[in-house]
Amino acid sequence: MPSMLVQTLKGFRDFLPEQARKRQYVINTLKDVFSSYGFEPLETPALEYEEILAGKYGEEGDKLMYRFEDNGGRRVALRYDQTVPLARVVAQNQNDLPSPFKRYQIQSVFRAENTQRGRFREFLQCDIDTTGTTSIFADAEILAIIADSFDALGFKDYTILVNDRTLFADLPTKAIIAIDKLKKIGAEEVKKELETLGVKGEKLDELLGASQTDTLKQIVDAAREFGVDEKRIRFEPTLARGLDYYTGIIIEVEVQGYSVGSVGGGGRYDNLIGMFAGKEVPAVGFAFGFDRIIEALEEQKLFPGNLSPTKALVTIFSPELLDNAIEATYQLRAAGIATELYLDPNTKMERQLKYADQKRIPYVIIIGNDEAVKNEITIKNLKTREQTKSPIRDIIKQLQVA
Amino acid sequence: MPSMLVQTLKGFRDFLPEQARKRQYVINTLKDVFSSYGFEPLETPALEYEEILAGKYGEEGDKLMYRFEDNGGRRVALRYDQTVPLARVVAQNQNDLPSPFKRYQIQSVFRAENTQRGRFREFLQCDIDTTGTTSIFADAEILAIIADSFDALGFKDYTILVNDRTLFADLPTKAIIAIDKLKKIGAEEVKKELETLGVKGEKLDELLGASQTDTLKQIVDAAREFGVDEKRIRFEPTLARGLDYYTGIIIEVEVQGYSVGSVGGGGRYDNLIGMFAGKEVPAVGFAFGFDRIIEALEEQKLFPGNLSPTKALVTIFSPELLDNAIEATYQLRAAGIATELYLDPNTKMERQLKYADQKRIPYVIIIGNDEAVKNEITIKNLKTREQTKSPIRDIIKQLQVA
Repeated sequence: MPSMLVQTLKGFRDFLPEQARKRQYVINTLKDVFSSYGFEPLETPALEYEEILAGKYGEEGDKLMYRFEDNGGRRVALRYDQTVPLARVVAQNQNDLPSPFKRYQIQSVFRAENTQRGRFREFLQCDIDTTGTTSIFADAEILAIIADSFDALGFKDYTILVNDRTLFADLPTKAIIAIDKLKKIGAEEVKKELETLGVKGEKLDELLGASQTDTLKQIVDAAREFGVDEKRIRFEPTLARGLDYYTGIIIEVEVQGYSVGSVGGGGRYDNLIGMFAGKEVPAVGFAFGFDRIIEALEEQKLFPGNLSPTKALVTIFSPELLDNAIEATYQLRAAGIATELYLDPNTKMERQLKYADQKRIPYVIIIGNDEAVKNEITIKNLKTREQTKSPIRDIIKQLQVA
Repeated sequence: MPSMLVQTLKGFRDFLPEQARKRQYVINTLKDVFSSYGFEPLETPALEYEEILAGKYGEEGDKLMYRFEDNGGRRVALRYDQTVPLARVVAQNQNDLPSPFKRYQIQSVFRAENTQRGRFREFLQCDIDTTGTTSIFADAEILAIIADSFDALGFKDYTILVNDRTLFADLPTKAIIAIDKLKKIGAEEVKKELETLGVKGEKLDELLGASQTDTLKQIVDAAREFGVDEKRIRFEPTLARGLDYYTGIIIEVEVQGYSVGSVGGGGRYDNLIGMFAGKEVPAVGFAFGFDRIIEALEEQKLFPGNLSPTKALVTIFSPELLDNAIEATYQLRAAGIATELYLDPNTKMERQLKYADQKRIPYVIIIGNDEAVKNEITIKNLKTREQTKSPIRDIIKQLQVA
């Protein structure tokens, strides 16, 4: 295959071990928080009937959706978000799902975005949603999960912006979209846009001076009772998230110092989940911006130093001492220490050490003739370059607390 | 949308919480074992250039592959397995990956299979592979991981069948495929097939009487040194796995009492991973049969009783006692007990208890007027129906060990 380009498609990514581990770390941290509130996992297929997805995401969605005819002549489409599949699942399992139904879903979605804007065509969505209740405690619980999640990830300084969609009750969609651009284009430009839409510019001042609605107050109060630090939540009366399907609270999270944009958004949307069920199914939810969270954690150096569980590489000093190496590996692993044995008995020690370095394994074990005779092993800390020789039971103790 | 069929595509599945949790449990159990041997996670995109995948899986693969033209006119294909993408990753990152490179990969693959045969069109593959070394310790390590994995999943009785491809050295592919059918069609039929292929029927008897090759002996010996119980491994000289790309050891795992078929297979394949790298890259690996493992665990009742982490549902006795319920929820959760608050303050107690039952939450907390006055809470075990009234600190202690 001399002429073939060996590469991934534009907008699609491989995740090599270091990056894959970061992703797993974030996923596991979030899952733990979600589970602690009784949210349950849901998975839906990557492919759906096109009919299920088409027309659900506006013109842009229909344009960006991956769709094609399968081998059996069916029109199919790749998962575009996790909300429409949730609506389908809710419709198909009305009698079997608990109500309220609290689910999380963490799967790839596919959008043929313009990659110039730093967007990806396959990316992980990470959603929590509660369906089947209009209770403000569902909304408050979402806020509590958001706070617990960003705390658990180690963010020191983040803000949960909230607004109530009913503040926009008398405004056309285009005016809401204009107001949502306030931070980007400034008040004067927003007012100009509003005027061209037949909305008085003062409407913006009115909004900026608005107070929290009663519902929003109740939700924020309940979130506080759930343990959310009040300072984390900020009322932002122009927050609209550009979407017109919200029916109550609107939520967005900002991490201070991370300038790319919000790291998640959501709100209450009572008219969407029932689309296939033939009845209204109220819902409130939040989508964590997975790629941005990873980027923010990297920028703020919040990832744990070494996410690899491997503590030690047992090197092979010479083919004759292989059995000693295997025996040491076995003992370390049996003691619960994630241990690798270097697999090639004929490799030079230097290359074995390089391998440990490359995999960021913190300790190497060396068993030479000396050690074999004295029934000891040498352990070398690859960071400090310190090395000591001891009986294996002492090394086990040392590594168990390292 | 009155005429629309709200359903998943044939061969595609939703995983509702109970099933999704089982999947997560198996994935996490396997990942822990893989990591303990220094295997690292890798993720590749769901979509690749068609050119990368086409022609790599034989005629059948080309027929079953999902492929189409994307919005930008590129020919693309959905992931069909995880080996060809691994080969691409290895070629693209030759200088950055450690060597040997030990990776695990757990992602969906897509095949337009005939669903009548109980096959799925999207299913999870769960692979471990070591590339870049011909060391027999790599092969032995794969055997050790297999044993540790099936042990960790709780299987009491499984067998790792092994063979050496070199026993078939002088046989054409079609004869190997015939021999592989021995269990299904019996010795007489296999011999007939061999004869029509110009191979003497006695070749089968010869194989059945064959002894382990030296390489196989060395691998099995090393596996034993790695801690694998010898009784787990059985030499099966007719094992071929129908595939002609194996170059050394061939592996298959059977769970006694599970009759659908093998729960995983693999072996050494030294001529495949280098396909894009322009050089030979030796490799050995194993694919866990994810769906079958789940089915076998279900049949043999080996899943832990309740995979939901939620320990308690705090009910709301009446809207006036809501604050007490929230406070109790907060305290239980702060004590590390996964606790749900029932979200609707106006729901009848009966329905709240039904909700707990449906979500298989083992305990409910009730705080009525009595409890509120005495600063106590009532806890009810939904299985035994026992209930006791105590101060919350005692309940916390009770649930922390429950």
